[in-house]
Amino acid sequence: MKLDHVGIAVPNLAAAIEQWRPLVGPPESPPEEVPSNRVRVAFVAVGETHIELLEPADETSPVARFLESRGPGVHHLAFSVPRVDTALAEVRARGLRVVDERARPGARGRRVGFAHPSAFGGVLVEFVEGP
Amino acid sequence: MKLDHVGIAVPNLAAAIEQWRPLVGPPESPPEEVPSNRVRVAFVAVGETHIELLEPADETSPVARFLESRGPGVHHLAFSVPRVDTALAEVRARGLRVVDERARPGARGRRVGFAHPSAFGGVLVEFVEGP
Repeated sequence: MKLDHVGIAVPNLAAAIEQWRPLVGPPESPPEEVPSNRVRVAFVAVGETHIELLEPADETSPVARFLESRGPGVHHLAFSVPRVDTALAEVRARGLRVVDERARPGARGRRVGFAHPSAFGGVLVEFVEGP
Repeated sequence: MKLDHVGIAVPNLAAAIEQWRPLVGPPESPPEEVPSNRVRVAFVAVGETHIELLEPADETSPVARFLESRGPGVHHLAFSVPRVDTALAEVRARGLRVVDERARPGARGRRVGFAHPSAFGGVLVEFVEGP
């Protein structure tokens, strides 16, 4: 089990990259659009994990709604798992809620799926397929 | 630069340990009181980083106030640095606010210090001295 990344909701991606740069350095690749979540993201490597800065692509993005209700801050924790579908099924088998019943395309060409925040005490948990 | 841990505010430490166990396994050591923050904490190793579950020790704890205003969820991100005092001074030198002007005793016998959430776009950042 590895923490793949910490997702942070930000109102402005370029400004957030500059804000974090003195602490964690520059993003490892150019910003990327993730249509399935209506966000634009940048990943910064921090040891074996990453910080993912998430800017809403439009006002219908879940991240736009998060920013409105909670303000900027940590949005989710992403754990890498061998199979996202299996991880989601395990959450459901424990009687807990998921956002996604099956894996879908996420950032960096990876398959991803979200549990519901109620499954992990208010923390939105993402599963990311891969090493 | 390494992400030492992700701090998660929880109303009940024992319940939170059981909630996270299926995903990340058991804590690496028994729960510990941290008098300087009026919290009781448990660390769970996740690869090279950790999840720190934080339960308020009493209603005056900063974590009790966090739970009241935001509900359970991610409370802070902690980065390991060679010298906490230097890391705090660097934040102040950029004209940004800190919670602690100098390092103080934290969990696991480590020296720690917090920047102000405004310094990192709404994210409460802790510096932890050590590898």
